[in-house]
Amino acid sequence: MPPAPACSFASDNAAGAHPAVLDALVRANDGHALAYGDDRWTAEAVGRFRDLFGATATPLLAWNGTGANVLALATMIRPADMVVCSRWAHIAVDETGAPERVLGSKLHTLPSADGKLQPEQIDELAHLVGDVHHAQPGVVSITQSTELGAVYTADEVAAICDAAHRLGMKVHLDGARIANATAALGGTIEALRSFTVDAGVDAISFGGTKAGMAFGEAVILLDPLLAARAPFIRKQVTQLPSKMRFVAAQFVALLDDDLWIRSAAHANRLAAVLYDATRDIPKIGYDSAPQVNSVFPVLPAELIEPLQQWCFFWPWDQSRGQVRWMTAWDTTDDDVARFAAGVRALCTA
Amino acid sequence: MPPAPACSFASDNAAGAHPAVLDALVRANDGHALAYGDDRWTAEAVGRFRDLFGATATPLLAWNGTGANVLALATMIRPADMVVCSRWAHIAVDETGAPERVLGSKLHTLPSADGKLQPEQIDELAHLVGDVHHAQPGVVSITQSTELGAVYTADEVAAICDAAHRLGMKVHLDGARIANATAALGGTIEALRSFTVDAGVDAISFGGTKAGMAFGEAVILLDPLLAARAPFIRKQVTQLPSKMRFVAAQFVALLDDDLWIRSAAHANRLAAVLYDATRDIPKIGYDSAPQVNSVFPVLPAELIEPLQQWCFFWPWDQSRGQVRWMTAWDTTDDDVARFAAGVRALCTA
Amino acid sequence: MPPAPACSFASDNAAGAHPAVLDALVRANDGHALAYGDDRWTAEAVGRFRDLFGATATPLLAWNGTGANVLALATMIRPADMVVCSRWAHIAVDETGAPERVLGSKLHTLPSADGKLQPEQIDELAHLVGDVHHAQPGVVSITQSTELGAVYTADEVAAICDAAHRLGMKVHLDGARIANATAALGGTIEALRSFTVDAGVDAISFGGTKAGMAFGEAVILLDPLLAARAPFIRKQVTQLPSKMRFVAAQFVALLDDDLWIRSAAHANRLAAVLYDATRDIPKIGYDSAPQVNSVFPVLPAELIEPLQQWCFFWPWDQSRGQVRWMTAWDTTDDDVARFAAGVRALCTA
Amino acid sequence: MPPAPACSFASDNAAGAHPAVLDALVRANDGHALAYGDDRWTAEAVGRFRDLFGATATPLLAWNGTGANVLALATMIRPADMVVCSRWAHIAVDETGAPERVLGSKLHTLPSADGKLQPEQIDELAHLVGDVHHAQPGVVSITQSTELGAVYTADEVAAICDAAHRLGMKVHLDGARIANATAALGGTIEALRSFTVDAGVDAISFGGTKAGMAFGEAVILLDPLLAARAPFIRKQVTQLPSKMRFVAAQFVALLDDDLWIRSAAHANRLAAVLYDATRDIPKIGYDSAPQVNSVFPVLPAELIEPLQQWCFFWPWDQSRGQVRWMTAWDTTDDDVARFAAGVRALCTA
Repeated sequence: MPPAPACSFASDNAAGAHPAVLDALVRANDGHALAYGDDRWTAEAVGRFRDLFGATATPLLAWNGTGANVLALATMIRPADMVVCSRWAHIAVDETGAPERVLGSKLHTLPSADGKLQPEQIDELAHLVGDVHHAQPGVVSITQSTELGAVYTADEVAAICDAAHRLGMKVHLDGARIANATAALGGTIEALRSFTVDAGVDAISFGGTKAGMAFGEAVILLDPLLAARAPFIRKQVTQLPSKMRFVAAQFVALLDDDLWIRSAAHANRLAAVLYDATRDIPKIGYDSAPQVNSVFPVLPAELIEPLQQWCFFWPWDQSRGQVRWMTAWDTTDDDVARFAAGVRALCTA
Repeated sequence: MPPAPACSFASDNAAGAHPAVLDALVRANDGHALAYGDDRWTAEAVGRFRDLFGATATPLLAWNGTGANVLALATMIRPADMVVCSRWAHIAVDETGAPERVLGSKLHTLPSADGKLQPEQIDELAHLVGDVHHAQPGVVSITQSTELGAVYTADEVAAICDAAHRLGMKVHLDGARIANATAALGGTIEALRSFTVDAGVDAISFGGTKAGMAFGEAVILLDPLLAARAPFIRKQVTQLPSKMRFVAAQFVALLDDDLWIRSAAHANRLAAVLYDATRDIPKIGYDSAPQVNSVFPVLPAELIEPLQQWCFFWPWDQSRGQVRWMTAWDTTDDDVARFAAGVRALCTA
Repeated sequence: MPPAPACSFASDNAAGAHPAVLDALVRANDGHALAYGDDRWTAEAVGRFRDLFGATATPLLAWNGTGANVLALATMIRPADMVVCSRWAHIAVDETGAPERVLGSKLHTLPSADGKLQPEQIDELAHLVGDVHHAQPGVVSITQSTELGAVYTADEVAAICDAAHRLGMKVHLDGARIANATAALGGTIEALRSFTVDAGVDAISFGGTKAGMAFGEAVILLDPLLAARAPFIRKQVTQLPSKMRFVAAQFVALLDDDLWIRSAAHANRLAAVLYDATRDIPKIGYDSAPQVNSVFPVLPAELIEPLQQWCFFWPWDQSRGQVRWMTAWDTTDDDVARFAAGVRALCTA
Repeated sequence: MPPAPACSFASDNAAGAHPAVLDALVRANDGHALAYGDDRWTAEAVGRFRDLFGATATPLLAWNGTGANVLALATMIRPADMVVCSRWAHIAVDETGAPERVLGSKLHTLPSADGKLQPEQIDELAHLVGDVHHAQPGVVSITQSTELGAVYTADEVAAICDAAHRLGMKVHLDGARIANATAALGGTIEALRSFTVDAGVDAISFGGTKAGMAFGEAVILLDPLLAARAPFIRKQVTQLPSKMRFVAAQFVALLDDDLWIRSAAHANRLAAVLYDATRDIPKIGYDSAPQVNSVFPVLPAELIEPLQQWCFFWPWDQSRGQVRWMTAWDTTDDDVARFAAGVRALCTA
């Protein structure tokens, strides 16, 4: 085998923090500042988010992705409501039942090949509305980009929002990788707005950790009616950071000069490079080209473990030998070249 | 008024991070590391906690104080159990109902003057045991040091643990300020062990944030039976840090060479200095001398706001003009001298 | 000892069902009827309740007292709210934490000698409003008549409602013994309305079981804004009777010709007779005369068990030898005379 | 159209109570009896259930089906566990999210054509075990007979129990129609035992309402380890009947001389008669013959509403014109003959 890459292809949360982000965190360690968000860094981060999403948006800084999702949903859900999402949704599959425990609400999962929902699937929920024996359609949660690396167009999000709003539902966008989606859709603030506030989304989980922060996520409430209770709910669901400046300062640095978009575009590009460098390898199969920072190749089962031991990554669908290779803000062209060379060496040995 | 101190006396969470702790966080930003605790910094932090509490202890790093308390209690509580605590307990008063929401359990508060419970108060719960109409005594939660700055002796904790265990209850110690209590009780690891593992405590919320970290707390399960489900519960209650190395590295630095105890002893000493420097001021009344890093003077109501505007602190019991002045790891002798001078100037004007 | 009474003085739920009520239940067993309330008996019961409380009231039939309380509160509570009640409240003491489990909400108990709250106690909650660290005052729950047999006047309820509404809170009235309170306050529908809909109460748990039904309670929503979600919540909290006609028919019989008030007046009168027949007995002490269908005498500790074995009743405050003797719709003058004679015999032996 | 039947074919809960059952309820109205199960009727009902399921079984009387299911599951579930069930399961589809709200647990639904699970589907959950990011397989809930009228054989239940127990899971049997299943499998107590206690089931919801009671269900805990907390949980989930004798007396009558099995066998037979009388009608399609008391014909869409208006029943799968006709303990041969004649008249008009 050739020399292994410097970084793994396990996940974008295996990367550390971007130096500019970490530097901002360090500079925020400047004497005393009141806790729980009554500090100048938080004020600045809130302002930056309002620059992105409009003056009526309510940004709430929080700890982590599961927490941000639970917080966002908790502001939106009514008793007896259910959250509707794809069968691949992180909230349904990868959060150990946190939504059910903290919300006390049903998650209703719908079939999907790539993690994207279709507006017709929302329309079909109409027969549940008003029947006391069924949990009521309350919130649609979509993931952008999805857990399988697919990206909704702005029109697709708008169609889901329209379908949801017709049934009196609200729409949550799980944006743990909203940076990658934004980069994939043009890499501009206009692109971001097109699939969020302009499309009719009511609340966003805005990912910071996978975009290059050491920790920290934000919930952005776009529907102003959700804002009144939200600060209380944040504390109640254990997502209120004490020394909040250390989250806020990171977000200010991340949002500064579109660092978050540029970093995600870099990761997206390297996933495409990895795809191109491996798609012709015998024994490697792909369902589709990557849209963001992950590829999902199918490998011969017996090659997976040797390859993992050389440079780690996670399996995806073990029944068919599918794995996930993921790039991050700090993956280099050299990492990708080395990794592709290793895959080729193993597959052609 | 004389010049104001450099730092406020609002809270120990208004202080930033200790430089050694922040430096460790920065040094942990070293390439890729698997998320969720499968990294060398977390392994080291776990080892450090086991050095403190024994090889059978299960340390779980978490985000914040409310989250650590909820996580610890969630590992201990059974259906239909209640958590018993003082009427001043942070879990009962200052967490916006997070325990009730996430645990689904009753909090049963008992009277207390200084935030400490008495073993007789636990004994009196015996009449509830076995009656299906009453929530069952399940967990006693004590705070060390308490929300009012009192410290349990090791014998007092042991007596509560004995009373609780006689009723089949478990004991949780909310140690958001366990460093200050340890410093007050001798400042040694033996002191720490005497009121925790040796006293019979079953689970600890071990405070990092107020001890000098940027963020991060730990739950230490001392009862090995609690450990099996705990990692799943941590994720479920949204308290599993993704890039965990950034919590772990801080704890390693904090625990290194007893930095946490030395920092707390410093804060405790300055509270005593502040008490001594203000106790003879006319118009200032104290119920008692400080045991840890807070004093609770009673002031004429009309002086509170001018003093807050000069150097901020929080009110405590507004009905009697009682306020709280709190020192931190970074408070200086000069800060205290300036603050005491300001108080004296205002009170004698 | 003289011959024991035919019935115990344990509780009004030790009595069976009133013959007229049971007869109505039997007559409702008339062929097929759609389940879940889509039947003519339920329509009639709803109409009867609207006759009492007004055309905008929403009656929801349910199974039992704990269930009715949880259902009523669930329609009123928002995330991060707390329910405020007396320290003697059934919801706080006698429901095994059902409200905390099903609502996920804090119960905040206030001191009270007789189970009644004072409006000033509500006023004092104002300092919590808007502070994200504290559960928010959301609902005041009062019990009428209280667990200690006290009765609020209409003016007292109105004052509590005013205080609650000033803070944006809603008011729940736990009326497990609303019949006894109505009887005590004049025994008319006007009396009922004076301390409920006219006083500003937002939701009522209307007791059927203790008033002479075999089973069944009703939640009456007086605030029309609570009604939209309530039918879904009823199912969700397991309180939707399947063959609802068997609850409804009983309520129709109970409400017919004021049977519920007349039965409660009877029980109230016999408690007064029992009080008069025992108050002069040596060794028997009373704090006060009964207002409804229970008396709370203090006995020498050594006499309690012999008396219970002769004719059963429950202890109340064991620390002072206080017990509870309770009358029911079917208690007779002869039962009371025999019981009083037995008490006198034992106390003067 | 010919004359309509005396009873609808809507549901077995549209039937009233069996006369023998109602008579027992009336006879239980015999003076005072302590509440909450401390009465002789409850003792007898408990004894009858232990005759069926063994001396170590713990029977708990409860209000209704949703409540019994939630209570049974609440005794079995651990934090971070999920309940696994068919996509047709009543707990997943028809209980308005009660399990999620009261348990705080995820329901994980598996595909099924007839409402039955296969043991292989349980085996496939093994990959979730031990992964902190996924809710843990905790309980399998099967419905016997299923929501679509299918019946598990004893061997099939045993295979599911074996698969579940291999993963450390427990097995719940939702027996809202356990009487119909017992009748279908031979109609003996041995048959009942073969697919419950002998097969390894850990807890049962034993249906009373649909079997001919006015109200009332029972939870039967077969795993003795579940019993300790169960009485407290019953109260906490609002399922503790106050005047319990009125539930217990009905169960005693229902279990007496196998009335429950005979009534169910009657209903099952009439479903078969209805199937035979309609299967050859043009325009009527059936997927399969009935196993219990329901048939699921497919009709031309335009005939459904006229037929419902003549004699009511519920739609099932509206996308294909499938409806449900259900018989009950009180359906007569004449009812079936009239109904079949009406269907034939409409379909051949």
